[in-house]
Order: sequence, then C-alpha cells, then structure tokens
Amino acid sequence: MGKPAPVSPFAPANLPAVPDVPGVAFATAEAGIRYKGRTDLLLAVFAPGTTVAGVLTRSKTRSAPVDWCAEGLRHGNARALVVNSGNANAFTGKKGREAVEITADAAADAVACAPGEVFIASTGVIGEPLDAGKFAHLLKGLAATTRADTWPDAARAIMTTDTFPKLATRTARIDGHEVVINGMCKGAGMIQPDMATMLCFVATDAPIAAPALQKLVSKSADETFNCVTVDSDTSTSDTLLVFATGEAEKRGCPRITDATDPRLADFAATLHDLLRELAILVAKDGEGITKFVTVEVEGAASDLAAKRIALSIANSPLVKTAIAGEDANWGRVVMAVGKSGEEADRDRLSISFGDIQVASEGERAPSYSEEEVSRYMQQPEITVRADIGIGTGRATVWTCDLTHGYIDINADYRS
Amino acid sequence: MGKPAPVSPFAPANLPAVPDVPGVAFATAEAGIRYKGRTDLLLAVFAPGTTVAGVLTRSKTRSAPVDWCAEGLRHGNARALVVNSGNANAFTGKKGREAVEITADAAADAVACAPGEVFIASTGVIGEPLDAGKFAHLLKGLAATTRADTWPDAARAIMTTDTFPKLATRTARIDGHEVVINGMCKGAGMIQPDMATMLCFVATDAPIAAPALQKLVSKSADETFNCVTVDSDTSTSDTLLVFATGEAEKRGCPRITDATDPRLADFAATLHDLLRELAILVAKDGEGITKFVTVEVEGAASDLAAKRIALSIANSPLVKTAIAGEDANWGRVVMAVGKSGEEADRDRLSISFGDIQVASEGERAPSYSEEEVSRYMQQPEITVRADIGIGTGRATVWTCDLTHGYIDINADYRS
Repeated sequence: MGKPAPVSPFAPANLPAVPDVPGVAFATAEAGIRYKGRTDLLLAVFAPGTTVAGVLTRSKTRSAPVDWCAEGLRHGNARALVVNSGNANAFTGKKGREAVEITADAAADAVACAPGEVFIASTGVIGEPLDAGKFAHLLKGLAATTRADTWPDAARAIMTTDTFPKLATRTARIDGHEVVINGMCKGAGMIQPDMATMLCFVATDAPIAAPALQKLVSKSADETFNCVTVDSDTSTSDTLLVFATGEAEKRGCPRITDATDPRLADFAATLHDLLRELAILVAKDGEGITKFVTVEVEGAASDLAAKRIALSIANSPLVKTAIAGEDANWGRVVMAVGKSGEEADRDRLSISFGDIQVASEGERAPSYSEEEVSRYMQQPEITVRADIGIGTGRATVWTCDLTHGYIDINADYRS
Repeated sequence: MGKPAPVSPFAPANLPAVPDVPGVAFATAEAGIRYKGRTDLLLAVFAPGTTVAGVLTRSKTRSAPVDWCAEGLRHGNARALVVNSGNANAFTGKKGREAVEITADAAADAVACAPGEVFIASTGVIGEPLDAGKFAHLLKGLAATTRADTWPDAARAIMTTDTFPKLATRTARIDGHEVVINGMCKGAGMIQPDMATMLCFVATDAPIAAPALQKLVSKSADETFNCVTVDSDTSTSDTLLVFATGEAEKRGCPRITDATDPRLADFAATLHDLLRELAILVAKDGEGITKFVTVEVEGAASDLAAKRIALSIANSPLVKTAIAGEDANWGRVVMAVGKSGEEADRDRLSISFGDIQVASEGERAPSYSEEEVSRYMQQPEITVRADIGIGTGRATVWTCDLTHGYIDINADYRS
C-alpha cells in the first residue's frame, strides 16, 4: 500500500483556457487562515445589475455562510462573492454568524454595495471558530486590484485537498447573441479529512432575471451536482451559485425574464452541459479514486426512482470495492437495487457492465463470459447499467471506487 | 498493511455452554456445495406442534428461500429447517424456486411432515444456480441421526466468512415455569465477498401461538437486528426465525395465545435481550473491524427519527474512518446528523464520545480537551452520543469502523 496518488489519475492534462466574462473580476490573497504559502481568499466583484441564483446544501446542520447565501438568494442581486478556504465556519454558533456579518460588511464597503449583495462561502475545518479579522481587512485592497483574466487563480484559491483545480467554459446563444458561461468548482461533498464542502461558482454575461435563472439552476443541479457521490456524505456547506452580470445586454442581447422563454433554450442546455462537466470533474477527484464510475439506471417506475436506485448502487461500499478490485460482481448490484426501497421485480432485472450484459430477467445472462467482462473491468472508466424492466424512469449518477487510498486519507492521516 | 485479522478481536474467548431445547434436534453434513472440508448443510427437526415467527429481508430482490419462508410464516407451523452455506440461491430465477421446492419435498419426506412446514435458508454466492441435487438426498440420513446437544456444530455449519460462530442462551419464566431460549446467527448483512446474508435462528420450548410470537419477534427485531449495520448494504437473504416447540407445556407451562398476556412479559424481555446479544455479535464480526461502535441518539423528534439519525452516523464512511483513525472528529458527526434528513437544530445539538462532551449547543464544548478525548478514542469500544435537543426520541445502533481490512476483504481478494 503506497500513499494515495498526489494527483487524481483523471485530472485533465491542462486547465482549459477560459475567456473573460464581461462584468466579472477577481482578486486572491494569502490570508493564512489555515494554509501557508498558498492563496486561501477569493474576492469576486460583479457589475451593477448582476443577478444570482443558486442551490444550497439540504443539510440540517448547514454552515453560517450557507444561511447567509439563502437570505441573499431571496432578492437575487449580487455585487460580490467572498470565499475562504481552510475553515468552513460550520457548527460555530453565534460566532459563526458574526464572522459572516463582519465579512459581508467589509466586502460591501470595499465594492460600494449593500451587505445583502455580498455572497459568502467557506470551506475547510468544521467546528473551528473562523476569525474574520484575519482577512476582512484585506478585502478593500483586493477590490482595488481585481482582474477579469484570473479564473485559474480563482479556481486554485478555493481548493482545499482537491488534487487539481476545476474549470470549464461554454458559449451559448440568446436570440442570436453569443454569451459566455464560465464555471469553477472544488471538492466532492464531504470528501476531505476534517473538511467540508462542494463549492461551485458560475458566471455569465447573459442578462437573465434572477427568478428565471433560479429555475434553470434548480433543474440542472438536480441532474448534475445532485447526481454525484463520492462517499454518500453530505457536506454542511455545499454551495452552487450562478451569477449573471447582464453585460451582454450592452451588445444588444435581450434581457430574459421568463425561464420558459424559447430564446433561453440554448442557454439552458449549455448551462446544464457546463454544470455536468464540473460535476463529473468533482467525481473524478474523489478521494483515493482509481476508477471513474458512471451508473445508468433505466426502466424504473419514475425518474426519481431511477435516481434513488442509481445512488443506492453508487453508494454501496460493496459495489465500490468490487469495482476497485476489477470484479464484475453483479450480485452486489442486485443487492443494491434491492435495498434502494424502490419498486423492482427481481425477475425482470437486467445488469450490464459497459455493453456486456451479465444478468438478464432475474438470472445470470446465458451469454455471460467471465473473461470478456474481466477485461472490461480493467478499464479506468466503468459504466454499470441496470434495467429495472418495469417502467420508463431513467437516471445517471457519477461516482468513484472505494479504495485503500480513501482509508489512508480519512483514517490514517494522524499517523 | 497486513492482512485482516483471522479472527475478530471482539470474538468471545469461548462459545457459551448452551442447554438443549426440548423438541429441537440437529444434524449437519459436508455436502461440498462450495466449501471443502467443513460442514455446509444443517437440518433442524422440531417436535410436532412447533410454531414459528420471523422477520425477513425487505430487499426487493430477495432470494428464493426468503420467498418460501414468507409463505410458510403465513400459517406459522414448523417441523424442519434446512440451511445451506456456500450459495445464497438469490437471483437464480425459476431454477432457484425449483431448488427450494426440491429441498422442501426431500426434508418433508425425511421428517414426515408437509413441505409447507419446512423452512429454508441459503447463504453464500448470489446469482450462481444452487444444485439441490447436491444435498437433498442427504436429508433422510440426517433426519435419522439428529441430536439435541449439537448447537455449536449447528452454528458452525451456517457460517460463511464469519470469523467465529455465534451462540447465545437465556432462561425465561412463564407463569412460574422455566423455559429455555437458544439462538445462533451468522454474518452481518452483506459483509462477505460475494456473499449475502444475515441468518438468525432461535428456538425455545415455550408454548406460544404463532401470531403472539410474531408480534414479539417483529418488535424486538426492529430494536436489535434492524439496529446493526456494518456497511449499510442490505442482504437479499436476511432471515430471522424463532421456533417455539411448546414442549414446556408437558411440564405444566400454560400455552400463551395473546402477545399482551402479562404472563409473557418476562419471556418477551428475555427474547429481546437474547436477540440484542446476537445482533451485537454480528456487529462485532464486521469485516475488518478494529473498533466496536455504539451510536446513541437522544432528544430527537421521535424514536424513528432517532434511529434514522443513528444509522446516518453509523453508516457514514467519514465517521467510520475517523473512528478507525482514533480521531474524535465530531465535525463528521455533525455532518451525519445534518444529512439524515430528520429534524435537527444545529444550535441545540450536543455530541459526546463516551462521557466526554465535545460539542454543545451548536459549537465546540467549552470544556473540550483534545488530550482527554484522544485517550478515549484509543479504547477498543467507542460510544458516540448525539443529543438532538428537540424532543424525546431515542435509539441505539451498533456498528464497527471502516478500515483497510474491509477494503482488503472486499476489493483485494482477487489478488
């Protein structure tokens, strides 16, 4: 047993080149909140008129910054985003709320906006009081030095134990006008030692009213980030925020106020695609990953049932360890379907690894070849398919295997 | 990283001496179903008039023998139990049902009863057709050689990759008459490589009608076996059966037909206690176990909510790995409470390891001493307590830690 790989084998060879998003600029700093010798503070500044939509953790023990963002999303106007890494400001009681207020006031002062237009995210240790005094005084200086072309720096400043920064970009068309959508994210749920948080920040210059944007984001999040699991553990701090500066309006792009406006269709599809790419990057940086796993379920009673079955398969420690061992152990997939609690008929269930059917109609497939499926299981990317055989519901979930690397990172780090 | 311990560090030093249960006799055989050089077939024969109650897996992909037992429990009369290890006869389609019928017919013939009075359980590989021809012909010979004093042999014959046999015994009083209750079990959910099944068989000479017995068993199972988790994976074959031969009636013990009969109170409490002991033995043989963990939740909105929160904590890979690493990582416990979906108020939540409070009312406890709690985490048996602070619901769940041993057993066994 060696140490876990320093960088996920699924890290992209290069960070993508991302264009600027008109109306968005960044600055980062080394505030020394927990880490030394790296940036741990990000300020993003948005043009006046920027709208925002988002999805936050459903955890009942969510962090103080998440509470703050929920409040801000009610009006949907954003001028600044402050992110710190190293401390999640979660389970920090009254002190946690005070730290958020100090941060919002300082950022509002720095960019000349209302505190309610400042969004805040924190990632790192849970339960440790966050001293906003360590970084609030830096925000004024940062606001004076922001640049539009520093997306990679921003993506690095929000990392905790991520093994690579995560960036993606797309271009969409609204009524014939090109708009840009960039996104960055970090983590994958509760995957870090002592750490919380999946954070994702997206910005576009499209002019979209907050309620319309919210509808797109909620729908896409359900089919992208909410379909990623590393270890089934839900962070206290998960935050996805999408900022729309509206700068494209200056180039003649119409302002969209209704999520069902047909002129928004391409944007909606493109945003969905971008979120999907970022979500998959999160799974590909899962702790101790050696296999990237896609679970596809079809034939379930409903799409929701399909998603629950897919998550049951993707979260099963026995399925995940079998894949780590390159074992096409479809009995464990049967078990995971059965335990999901969703409607299933053992005698109609079919299971495939990739395109190789291993079980059909409730028993081992007549065509089953141990050798063929073993060869497939040696691939780095594995698809597990289950056809429940009773309806038309379908869902896709992304995950990784469960390996000694995961145990090393989460149990052995004291040694 | 060494290999997992050959025997769980929590195995009792000695098997308990258990008395005979009047009306129950066993015989075992080496049928060579999968294992060589060990017994893998158990026949238990019960006196005429024996009643039976039970609880079966709620998996939607349950095995053919479980379907068969569900049918038999509808009338509640038992004369024989046949258990094989090495093959779970799960996900085996029509062939699986045929194997069960062949077994029931052969056992019925051997002990001169109706096939519906034969109960069957299979444990081992999923998806491999079970050839009943390998052992059905042995049942007649076994029926002729049963003995009442072979509980340890019976407990060994039903093992798969258990590291120790699991036996327990109690004496209860019904209206002043002593009755004996013995139990054996194996496994802990889906904990074995390629294997399924938690099996538990209990027998008593108490005279109790099947419907009354069923009420006791259902209630106790919910608070004992349904409160044990090793890896959150639910078997296709979990089977708990309680047989009551009624032989104590010959000694003057009254026959009880109503679960609420006050004369049954001591029996009910004693049966519960026995099931609890057996359930804990299952957790103590969890794959790769180095720490036995008790999760106690109180102050939840209801008992059911408390159980769900306790299971969320006990199944969290991050909580389990933290305990393996002797890390009092209460932030992960907060996370697990939050993700359970049950009502909770971050600012009322308190968490203790053993008697050491580490967090109270939503933040780190003022009395927190890293040194004190670190010393506690080095103990082999760890109790995690969470007081949700909003109601009176409470629950206890038993589990083990998540270690390299678990990965070795479930991922590396091909090497």
